[in-house]
Amino acid sequence: MTDWLTQPIAPIDLEARAAAQARQGVLTKPPGSLGRLEQLAADFAGWQGRAVPVLSDIDIVVFAGDHGVAAQGVSAFDQAVTGQMIANFAAGGAAICVLARRHHARLAIVDLGAVAPPADCPDVIDARIGPGTADFTTGAAMQADELEQALRAGRERVWASAHLFIGGEMGIGNTTSAAAVLAGLTGATPAQVVGRGTGVDSAGLARKQAVVAAGLARHGSSWQGLTGAAHALAVLRCVGGFEIAALTGAFVAAAQAGVPVLVDGFIASVAALCAVEIAPACRHWQLFGHRSAETGHAGVLARLEARPLLDLDMRLGEGSGAALALGVIADALALHADMATFDEAGVTSSDG
Amino acid sequence: MTDWLTQPIAPIDLEARAAAQARQGVLTKPPGSLGRLEQLAADFAGWQGRAVPVLSDIDIVVFAGDHGVAAQGVSAFDQAVTGQMIANFAAGGAAICVLARRHHARLAIVDLGAVAPPADCPDVIDARIGPGTADFTTGAAMQADELEQALRAGRERVWASAHLFIGGEMGIGNTTSAAAVLAGLTGATPAQVVGRGTGVDSAGLARKQAVVAAGLARHGSSWQGLTGAAHALAVLRCVGGFEIAALTGAFVAAAQAGVPVLVDGFIASVAALCAVEIAPACRHWQLFGHRSAETGHAGVLARLEARPLLDLDMRLGEGSGAALALGVIADALALHADMATFDEAGVTSSDG
Repeated sequence: MTDWLTQPIAPIDLEARAAAQARQGVLTKPPGSLGRLEQLAADFAGWQGRAVPVLSDIDIVVFAGDHGVAAQGVSAFDQAVTGQMIANFAAGGAAICVLARRHHARLAIVDLGAVAPPADCPDVIDARIGPGTADFTTGAAMQADELEQALRAGRERVWASAHLFIGGEMGIGNTTSAAAVLAGLTGATPAQVVGRGTGVDSAGLARKQAVVAAGLARHGSSWQGLTGAAHALAVLRCVGGFEIAALTGAFVAAAQAGVPVLVDGFIASVAALCAVEIAPACRHWQLFGHRSAETGHAGVLARLEARPLLDLDMRLGEGSGAALALGVIADALALHADMATFDEAGVTSSDG
Repeated sequence: MTDWLTQPIAPIDLEARAAAQARQGVLTKPPGSLGRLEQLAADFAGWQGRAVPVLSDIDIVVFAGDHGVAAQGVSAFDQAVTGQMIANFAAGGAAICVLARRHHARLAIVDLGAVAPPADCPDVIDARIGPGTADFTTGAAMQADELEQALRAGRERVWASAHLFIGGEMGIGNTTSAAAVLAGLTGATPAQVVGRGTGVDSAGLARKQAVVAAGLARHGSSWQGLTGAAHALAVLRCVGGFEIAALTGAFVAAAQAGVPVLVDGFIASVAALCAVEIAPACRHWQLFGHRSAETGHAGVLARLEARPLLDLDMRLGEGSGAALALGVIADALALHADMATFDEAGVTSSDG
């Protein structure tokens, strides 16, 4: 049942937003001189419904799952790595773990279906749908009920009390699935959406493009003529992945609950685009953490008219690029809350 | 006496740098996937002479001074604001104060010569050279001994034990001086280097351009035919400012002492260019925090072949854009130090 996807998206508090903008105008600095930091303060004010927003309650959820299409040789890594990295997340050794600790964020790991899940990891949330998706070059990646489960698994990790939600992902082969989803959503060509992922060579890149082309050829008729939510769900089911669907579900649920999402790189952005296709107002609750070095990211950002906060040539996933942006956001909100006003400091403003 | 400017620049530890790069190759992520964060870890390793560098000792020094050229109506703010902002820095209400607290950096405020210095600010370091520079449209901004004092005032704020030095500045009119210095150093036209600073209107912008053109016309012959240090010092003396010279001195002294500098926006970058003109090897100790929205910044960055870490449309100065980049750097070093290796985590790497 995907009825919940059509529930209303939370409104933005425009009054609080305007109050934050007014406050920025009287802080001891030239108006506008904090650039995008001023917009961040206003965005969070609108999301939280208060002129001076806070950021103390951050959820990072990493969704992991395997991809049948990995059998086509689209990754530089063995499929066993998905399960191994789940164990690494649980043990605190992965990049996202370091960043979650640095930024005082809660970190949850959700296994949606690794082929070789780690034994004995009680800290991993078991939401297994199956041992990976099916190979989309030979059939639909998911059955309808599997897609519903994956979307719901994302929704279930969103808490309305959070100030910010970051969705990360892990899954060998998932840049291939994300590229296919993006091409299915937008009509882009494989060459426009397929990149080197974790680092395939040129032969691997050509193989990935051929695999995406094969997926589109096989499934394109399944979504032909569809629009909006039906279109996005058909594409996700045929060529997506458990974690891409879970991120989509989480992003829709967050926007319904009034929780802004800080979107990570290529794969998370494809999920963000799915969420916007399902419910366009989701876009008002999306902030983009970084511009990934992965080929297809520029196209999905352009489609979403999104300008990420950071551009550091990262392409790791896990939510790491979004988590890195937490420092900039926290600084922006601290400046907004703690700087003196012209009156408080006895400084003459430019207009008087 | 400016003899100290020719003392040798500290060498980079290439062995430690290579060891850090090797470590990045065995952390649990695809090689290269942390992008510029990996380079940051290697840079700090080379600077600190250890494969796993730390960042716990950060100096932020804000140099403040007034500019005679402010009399030409080049700023949106009254000249009294320089002194008022010094008081605001001392009281902890300015942007750089908030960021220094957030990033556990020491903050020092140096008054090099505000026209109206605040009374009763014991926390402000008194290094006053005079009540502002002279108006460079009618004479040299500084006398030779004033320039020497300003350079030395910068040098005196650099501690060899620091892991990183940020130099900030405050001075009504100083984007005009910095633009004139940049034009004097590079031969750029006033239109290429003059921007709106704190926010002048179009008439103000035209006035600033005319003022810079007048300064270049008046003083150009003073540095004609000079190169290197002599060139940079002549330009600084004729059209610079106390704080621009102090930043230059600090950047040279830091590179001599083996302390990397995190360069802020337009004005600090012009000082960084002066430091490189004086001693080219200074460039190896410079890291750039952000790309400012101020017009001339792109040109000076191109000249220095510098790619800043952040690009957030900021144009505040004070060292604020550099301080904002501290979070990214601290995250990069934490990832480098704390992530598990493939062996430690039992994860299969891409080459085996």
